[in-house]
Amino acid sequence: MTRKYSVILGNLGNTCDRFCSSYKDNPSTQEMLAAAVKIPHVQGIELVGTWDVTPENAKEMHNVLDGHGVQCVSVIPDLFADRLYWKGSYSSTDATVRQKAIDDTRAMCEAASVLNCDLLNIWPGQDGYDYLLAADYEKQREWLCEAIQTLATEYPAMRFALEYKPKEPRTHSYLARMADTLLLAQETGCDNVGVTIDTGHAFNAGEVVGESIVLAKRAGNRLMHMHFNDNHAAWDDDMIVGSVHTVCYIEMLYWLDRCGYDGYFSMDQYPYREDAAGCIGESIEWLIQFDEILTQNHQKISALLADPDPIATSRFLRSVLV
Amino acid sequence: MTRKYSVILGNLGNTCDRFCSSYKDNPSTQEMLAAAVKIPHVQGIELVGTWDVTPENAKEMHNVLDGHGVQCVSVIPDLFADRLYWKGSYSSTDATVRQKAIDDTRAMCEAASVLNCDLLNIWPGQDGYDYLLAADYEKQREWLCEAIQTLATEYPAMRFALEYKPKEPRTHSYLARMADTLLLAQETGCDNVGVTIDTGHAFNAGEVVGESIVLAKRAGNRLMHMHFNDNHAAWDDDMIVGSVHTVCYIEMLYWLDRCGYDGYFSMDQYPYREDAAGCIGESIEWLIQFDEILTQNHQKISALLADPDPIATSRFLRSVLV
Amino acid sequence: MTRKYSVILGNLGNTCDRFCSSYKDNPSTQEMLAAAVKIPHVQGIELVGTWDVTPENAKEMHNVLDGHGVQCVSVIPDLFADRLYWKGSYSSTDATVRQKAIDDTRAMCEAASVLNCDLLNIWPGQDGYDYLLAADYEKQREWLCEAIQTLATEYPAMRFALEYKPKEPRTHSYLARMADTLLLAQETGCDNVGVTIDTGHAFNAGEVVGESIVLAKRAGNRLMHMHFNDNHAAWDDDMIVGSVHTVCYIEMLYWLDRCGYDGYFSMDQYPYREDAAGCIGESIEWLIQFDEILTQNHQKISALLADPDPIATSRFLRSVLV
Amino acid sequence: MTRKYSVILGNLGNTCDRFCSSYKDNPSTQEMLAAAVKIPHVQGIELVGTWDVTPENAKEMHNVLDGHGVQCVSVIPDLFADRLYWKGSYSSTDATVRQKAIDDTRAMCEAASVLNCDLLNIWPGQDGYDYLLAADYEKQREWLCEAIQTLATEYPAMRFALEYKPKEPRTHSYLARMADTLLLAQETGCDNVGVTIDTGHAFNAGEVVGESIVLAKRAGNRLMHMHFNDNHAAWDDDMIVGSVHTVCYIEMLYWLDRCGYDGYFSMDQYPYREDAAGCIGESIEWLIQFDEILTQNHQKISALLADPDPIATSRFLRSVLV
Repeated sequence: MTRKYSVILGNLGNTCDRFCSSYKDNPSTQEMLAAAVKIPHVQGIELVGTWDVTPENAKEMHNVLDGHGVQCVSVIPDLFADRLYWKGSYSSTDATVRQKAIDDTRAMCEAASVLNCDLLNIWPGQDGYDYLLAADYEKQREWLCEAIQTLATEYPAMRFALEYKPKEPRTHSYLARMADTLLLAQETGCDNVGVTIDTGHAFNAGEVVGESIVLAKRAGNRLMHMHFNDNHAAWDDDMIVGSVHTVCYIEMLYWLDRCGYDGYFSMDQYPYREDAAGCIGESIEWLIQFDEILTQNHQKISALLADPDPIATSRFLRSVLV
Repeated sequence: MTRKYSVILGNLGNTCDRFCSSYKDNPSTQEMLAAAVKIPHVQGIELVGTWDVTPENAKEMHNVLDGHGVQCVSVIPDLFADRLYWKGSYSSTDATVRQKAIDDTRAMCEAASVLNCDLLNIWPGQDGYDYLLAADYEKQREWLCEAIQTLATEYPAMRFALEYKPKEPRTHSYLARMADTLLLAQETGCDNVGVTIDTGHAFNAGEVVGESIVLAKRAGNRLMHMHFNDNHAAWDDDMIVGSVHTVCYIEMLYWLDRCGYDGYFSMDQYPYREDAAGCIGESIEWLIQFDEILTQNHQKISALLADPDPIATSRFLRSVLV
Repeated sequence: MTRKYSVILGNLGNTCDRFCSSYKDNPSTQEMLAAAVKIPHVQGIELVGTWDVTPENAKEMHNVLDGHGVQCVSVIPDLFADRLYWKGSYSSTDATVRQKAIDDTRAMCEAASVLNCDLLNIWPGQDGYDYLLAADYEKQREWLCEAIQTLATEYPAMRFALEYKPKEPRTHSYLARMADTLLLAQETGCDNVGVTIDTGHAFNAGEVVGESIVLAKRAGNRLMHMHFNDNHAAWDDDMIVGSVHTVCYIEMLYWLDRCGYDGYFSMDQYPYREDAAGCIGESIEWLIQFDEILTQNHQKISALLADPDPIATSRFLRSVLV
Repeated sequence: MTRKYSVILGNLGNTCDRFCSSYKDNPSTQEMLAAAVKIPHVQGIELVGTWDVTPENAKEMHNVLDGHGVQCVSVIPDLFADRLYWKGSYSSTDATVRQKAIDDTRAMCEAASVLNCDLLNIWPGQDGYDYLLAADYEKQREWLCEAIQTLATEYPAMRFALEYKPKEPRTHSYLARMADTLLLAQETGCDNVGVTIDTGHAFNAGEVVGESIVLAKRAGNRLMHMHFNDNHAAWDDDMIVGSVHTVCYIEMLYWLDRCGYDGYFSMDQYPYREDAAGCIGESIEWLIQFDEILTQNHQKISALLADPDPIATSRFLRSVLV
């Protein structure tokens, strides 16, 4: 499988957390873009709408990307940084807010069209709850489902990849794991609704990504997009690929191939205190090297899975890793 | 909602772990049954097949239960203690083992019929994997699905409640959480396939049970059975209800009612070092008292969920708890 | 034991996270103070230096607090929000930064003196590491220890309460848990170095707070301060006391009494989307009600601990809780 | 540093869990020993008293080990499988049980002497608690400390390595993590009391083992023994080294060297469903290969730690791993 690598533009920007409001300086969109396209192997860019792209500047942004020789891989509507969505977007208890979330996404569908991009990466990060006995899970899930259905029906040429994450910024997200996100995708009845795996979100959810890829395939081949990063499993640390985990990336690549994934490998990190381009570049290099292991050992791995023996697996891993 | 309480018979038996082979003495089935029916409020019993019930003794067991004035609530085929299933039952890579697992379940369907019981509680505890790169997630999930479909089609009058659990005895189970189990239930295309929530398994899976109940309702009203216990969240400690968690039980009972659950409340504990009847009795008493809170505050809780405000929720909880 | 309640002033301020830069509006120090002192039972305030207090305004702040009839309970040097400390303060690999961290703390010792406050609450949140193979644990721990020793020796009338936390903002903190913080306190050889328990940090560290209190007592009676909040255990959610946990607060209060803790009960929350004064007020009310249970059942609880029987404990908890 | 490899004899035996009483067959001590010494690189054996060794058979066992050309590396008193210790050994509320635990350990000290072994590996697995408000943490910790002190004083030529583990078989162990175990070791006032790191226990405790090694060094050079295995972090899965984690083993070996550890590298696994000798052999091979990386890159690693840059670390890891 030929791989295509991309990066979310905002990865090149400033970082902060709830304690420190700014670890770095604020670069402009143009500066971030210039830095992004210089990273070896990067062929595509993901844009967050309204930060990086608006319906107004979409044409211009298209030309800029074109000039850099990169593609717009996805547009990500901002449903998480806008204070208006602090208690949810599509599933807000406030009908006006729900409407605005749908309208904002519509605008991003239009922008994506202009950018020749057919993928909306939907991360409804504020849609969830913090406290027990303080949310109507049934109604809110219904609203969330209806919104996605409305959008997917209205924009049949667009693909809607729902990005799940178990927590943060809410203590509990409605789209928390692969399987519940697939259930919702199926409920919409729309074939153009699928899932984005962010590897770190999956680790944090306790998932073995190889198995999550299989779930997506069995539920109607719904894996639409991949975000790569690593973490210590307890939180979405958004670190360099390979910093913590090793074996599961090899397994993950095997299953992406076997399940026929042909989308982008997009880097999504949050380098609080590190050089962003350096981190993203490293992640891509790890993935390339893991892929080399895979290319040279595809049959061996298939054989290991067909006739499981952890000792044989261990022997194989030692031979390719250390 | 009138509640019906039951207990898994084996809860009254001996306990062990991988270090100590026996913490207590081994009572006979008759002794366990005598102890179980003495626990206040117990109206039903769950039996593990071949330990407690076989096709041969089913008629006799039926009479014994009848004599005690209790119902057989479910039959649980032993897919976890039989050494034959050490690497999986329905999803074993060995076709002979898969066949035996189906045949064993058939026998338990027959036994359940004799016992006037229409519920098979299926816990395929050995169906999963321990090591990365040592299982074919796709093929094994397919086998698991086919087996359930075969059984559910063959026994249309029987209901098959799949009990999920994230781990133990394997490091990863195929039926790990509510949502992936619902996906599999839907794939069978059989309405008589549903889910058992074991509250401790759900806690260990990081689920808020109230939300899991909603997922089951939205996926075709598939919640069929409830197992109650508590734990410290990191493992399936199988402790007395209310020992660790408080608020989420109240929330859970609210959602069971709202989603129309009318099955048994079955106790499933593993009192390693405690008096078993005492533990089970305590769990039932907690649930009864939580239900009293619910009965007196149903409207208040509905209002708290409709218009979320964690401070109002806190005030309410203080008023009913401390 | 008579309880004294306090709050960290910043709790009344704006909130943010790495996605959304501002969930609320920015109140002035005076506005926060006015809101804080209106919360029933609040008798003390914790100030973060240089946000709330500087050596320059300490005298004035003292008068303001006096005017409100509240005490300065602790001063918290800002070792976490200043971008200079992004890779550590006392344990930075940069000697200039380490020196500045010590100097900043000295300034806060002076300010505390003026405020008639003998407690420095030290939270070196940036002192830790994110990546494996990217920190010299030995050298950095040594620097951290030396800095505390220097300060504690220089200000013998001041008490230095080290606040531990397993992670955030770093993926790993050097002062991560009660026991490692006690080891460091002992290494300083200074009796005026102790520990602050933040209940949420302790939950996140997998601690049973009752046991942590005992550890502190056995290590030279080093528990100096208490921060109260609640969370879902997986992260420092900084929620209202009692929102998630119940039983462990009762146990915790018992052990605070038994180990002779006579300091403040300080509220430390981060109400992202809630009314701050409401949240803090609720937390205090929970603690008051838990204390009532304790007062009425002190002997019973002592008996339960002396002759452990989880069934008796369960019966007791039901009698006081539901 | 020259490495010496050993294995706990029982690793070669039968396996079980609380569901299935026997996954394998029961080999004799002689059969296990024959299998153990055939594993390449194994030079030492750890024996569990009274399973493998008793004061009565110690002389004979010594001759047998001698005949096989292997050393007795440690003796592990059985404080976990004997039903008598179900609610604790040294910290039991029953004084008779506490006395027996001390006497049993004394017998093992005598046996160790006969075996020319100066290391007692103490794992008080049953010493802990399961339920909240059902243990006197203060008194029980005191008893635990006194017992260790008594033994260490009585056998000054023997070294007592306390093996910590956060949970299992109890939901909470008294010796849970490196730091609290060091506190207790220091409290005994005995230099011959130290700590065993079981890598899997440390992962399960959320520790970065490199840092734990540093803590032990700073607390009086108290690291006495190493048990190696791997797991998925959520539980003590006792798997083959390298199956899940990679980077942290390299880091761990670096710190063992830097802190001057010169004891055995002992394998401690629990191969539920795998060939035991195969698993243990694999673990040793991983460690040998990790050590080769270390040998060739010692200076590079030291430089990475002295001047932290996660991108440089990543580049290094890619160069040695993939």
